[in-house]
Amino acid sequence: MKTHVKQLNIRTHKKLQLVDITAEVEEIVRGSDIKNGICLVFAPHATAAIVANEHERGLMEDMLEKISMDYPHNGKWKHNLIDDNAAAHLASAFIGSGRVFPVLDGRLIRGTWQNIFLVELDGPRYSRRVIVEVLGE
Amino acid sequence: MKTHVKQLNIRTHKKLQLVDITAEVEEIVRGSDIKNGICLVFAPHATAAIVANEHERGLMEDMLEKISMDYPHNGKWKHNLIDDNAAAHLASAFIGSGRVFPVLDGRLIRGTWQNIFLVELDGPRYSRRVIVEVLGE
Amino acid sequence: MKTHVKQLNIRTHKKLQLVDITAEVEEIVRGSDIKNGICLVFAPHATAAIVANEHERGLMEDMLEKISMDYPHNGKWKHNLIDDNAAAHLASAFIGSGRVFPVLDGRLIRGTWQNIFLVELDGPRYSRRVIVEVLGE
Repeated sequence: MKTHVKQLNIRTHKKLQLVDITAEVEEIVRGSDIKNGICLVFAPHATAAIVANEHERGLMEDMLEKISMDYPHNGKWKHNLIDDNAAAHLASAFIGSGRVFPVLDGRLIRGTWQNIFLVELDGPRYSRRVIVEVLGE
Repeated sequence: MKTHVKQLNIRTHKKLQLVDITAEVEEIVRGSDIKNGICLVFAPHATAAIVANEHERGLMEDMLEKISMDYPHNGKWKHNLIDDNAAAHLASAFIGSGRVFPVLDGRLIRGTWQNIFLVELDGPRYSRRVIVEVLGE
Repeated sequence: MKTHVKQLNIRTHKKLQLVDITAEVEEIVRGSDIKNGICLVFAPHATAAIVANEHERGLMEDMLEKISMDYPHNGKWKHNLIDDNAAAHLASAFIGSGRVFPVLDGRLIRGTWQNIFLVELDGPRYSRRVIVEVLGE
């Protein structure tokens, strides 16, 4: 067994933003020399998340709109008494900051319309990290 | 280390439907000859999801009702300008298309009331795929 | 490759409660003698969940309040005709009962404000189990 780990450093530009990292993740899987295993895509942040879905401009706006509706920035949260980003924390906790994909025959397995996104929930940030870990043999 | 991978092909019959795949997943784990590791259950689809919970008829209807409430089919989504299934995409992105379970002593570990379901969000479909990957030794 | 598995047994005291298990999980990773791999934190329960986020008293109350809002205990669920905990089941299914973290250089990788919590959704319970599985080499 072996592990192959790379870190992406991503600059975000908006309060809420989806960053498509599919190409970077697939490149890391290809470069791993791992034939069969899994790929963990993980954001070590409490105000970001990882999701997989279609890269279609309208849908990407819908995803951010849905997050704004479900986790309103101006909600009456206690965490906002000491900071102003409770909504971002809540979205990160419940959407989740990682996703796991199969790796088979050296390729990341995903659906045709299943791109991988970093979800910025409290940007802009100079550097968001995403750990891409391929594990297998 | 070894990996053991099988693909389930599942026909769905309704717009929203839960398909209990626990028996199939457990059979694959048993047939894997892997004693200790993990089992990734992954749907390579942008309008389906995987969840674990109780197989009780009322609760299964509740889960689908909750999805309909949280992701209404006739919501005013931009993706619906080019397609009609934005709600299904949103539910898939946020619920997640995979779940990971421990495998110990050759058995999948889950709670007594924790069955594994494919969640069809945009059916009916002739063939939904679920990748079941057992990894360990 | 090797796997190192420990089970936490946690007593909960309230209907809804967050239990910070970060120290226990990190101790298990350190004791695993595994340098690189993953750590799966999994609750084998249909009315509990696992999340990662900041251990700040206000935010912890916000997380529970958000769960109460999204999954109201007195909702008109069919499962409540035979039991009284449909809301707990729904929250467990959709939030998810597991989270996966990278393990690098013998350390669990998480963000500075990303503590690991068992989410009790239907307590109090005498013993909730959390499986902590470290897999790698």
